[in-house]
Amino acid sequence: MREYPIFTNQNKKREMAKSDLILVTNDDGLGSSGIASLVEAMETLGEVIVVAPIEPQSGMSQAITVKHPLRVIKSQLNGCPSYSVNGTPTDCVKLALNQLLPRKPDLLVSGINHGSNSSTSVLYSGTMGAALEGCVNGIPSIGFSIISYDHKTNLSTAKKYAAKIAAQVLKQGLPLHTCLNVNIPALPEEEIKGIHICRQTMGFWQEEFDKRTDPSGNNYYWLTGEYFNSEPEATDTDEWALENNYIAIVPLRTDLTSYPTIDLIKKWDL
Amino acid sequence: MREYPIFTNQNKKREMAKSDLILVTNDDGLGSSGIASLVEAMETLGEVIVVAPIEPQSGMSQAITVKHPLRVIKSQLNGCPSYSVNGTPTDCVKLALNQLLPRKPDLLVSGINHGSNSSTSVLYSGTMGAALEGCVNGIPSIGFSIISYDHKTNLSTAKKYAAKIAAQVLKQGLPLHTCLNVNIPALPEEEIKGIHICRQTMGFWQEEFDKRTDPSGNNYYWLTGEYFNSEPEATDTDEWALENNYIAIVPLRTDLTSYPTIDLIKKWDL
Repeated sequence: MREYPIFTNQNKKREMAKSDLILVTNDDGLGSSGIASLVEAMETLGEVIVVAPIEPQSGMSQAITVKHPLRVIKSQLNGCPSYSVNGTPTDCVKLALNQLLPRKPDLLVSGINHGSNSSTSVLYSGTMGAALEGCVNGIPSIGFSIISYDHKTNLSTAKKYAAKIAAQVLKQGLPLHTCLNVNIPALPEEEIKGIHICRQTMGFWQEEFDKRTDPSGNNYYWLTGEYFNSEPEATDTDEWALENNYIAIVPLRTDLTSYPTIDLIKKWDL
Repeated sequence: MREYPIFTNQNKKREMAKSDLILVTNDDGLGSSGIASLVEAMETLGEVIVVAPIEPQSGMSQAITVKHPLRVIKSQLNGCPSYSVNGTPTDCVKLALNQLLPRKPDLLVSGINHGSNSSTSVLYSGTMGAALEGCVNGIPSIGFSIISYDHKTNLSTAKKYAAKIAAQVLKQGLPLHTCLNVNIPALPEEEIKGIHICRQTMGFWQEEFDKRTDPSGNNYYWLTGEYFNSEPEATDTDEWALENNYIAIVPLRTDLTSYPTIDLIKKWDL
């Protein structure tokens, strides 16, 4: 397996915290309570600029918009400059980096997403799509999610840990082409057992489409489904961490290559 | 790094080729010449069922549709049962597996995409999103792309190689949680130098948004940009292969975990 030894940020001289520029985005849209909490957390660490979708973009993965042009509306969120975009989370990151920010940010944070992005869900996640996009562009990036779909969930514990983890990333940097997927149980702080640095659980969704018939007699399908953990016994996974009241941090990479499979296929008759 | 030694298909008794069920999908939509060619190629190997987007879905990554219901229209493509879906390539795979196919397919192929999905483009690709979705569900899966955006490009060479590679996957299987990303130069067969089994090139898009002003004086942005290869000297990459007239096969994995980074972060003050 090929690794990338060059570290971003690590050798940067740490000056006053306020000199760090932090890009905040999400996939639930600029109106969500999750992004408001994340902005509050990041304001303790540096200068914050928000670029986020105008509408919810859950399940958008790392999709980009090629079929229609993007528009940007400037406003404010908690006193920070904010831009809303009629596109995907990845569009927001691209527009931020190329049009809206005064310079390359020192950190990108995405979230706090309402709902888990652990295990296989990371593949569909717009929140993590944005973090991966930051990563592709050489920016230390983190996606945060809370394990509750309730937009009224208390985010104070998640906010506290987001600030703590982001501060460490600003201090330590991250290896090139890697970012962090952070999932946080929706629990009071005293019930959080700690932080588990772990791997992505292998699992899948047993899709149970909700098949319905419209008044004209035509079928339509709502995507729904139930998550299935393929390795429930493993203890080094994000699913284990969350089930046991730990915060799960999984480092992700943008190089999708399966290196051992290269040698395997070289033996084929092609 | 954790590897998955269990192989799909490998130990399956090979019966008549016609007994294999092959799911064909794409991201350019059911009307594209790429999918028609892929169907023709797959008909030489087994029973083909097509489930593809009704509209082009380029750049949709592994996005899923959660905001509106999906509808399915049944038709035929080159004599095969075909279903068009008002959703993403990943939606098509999910609907195929859960609602439309009589059984789990022996192979999923996606494409032939018009345009490269090499290097970082794999992250945004709807074609590869569908292949990764097949992979998550334990189906040997391959995405095919031709290095030309011209929908009138001659696909005969690509079709021939698609059949050859798919036949090998049906015969050999693929390791669990891996799939293949195949990019094919738009060249006559005699100019193809061979097949290069390689890794994903690290690179990024230097986004150059085309900023315009509408008649009301408001700005809008079209996503465009130029690809930048971060490692032009490397010879074990898909970009090298394509520049040198080789077909590039990159095995991909759905486990995004950066394993070496786990130990690194465990040393942090968290």
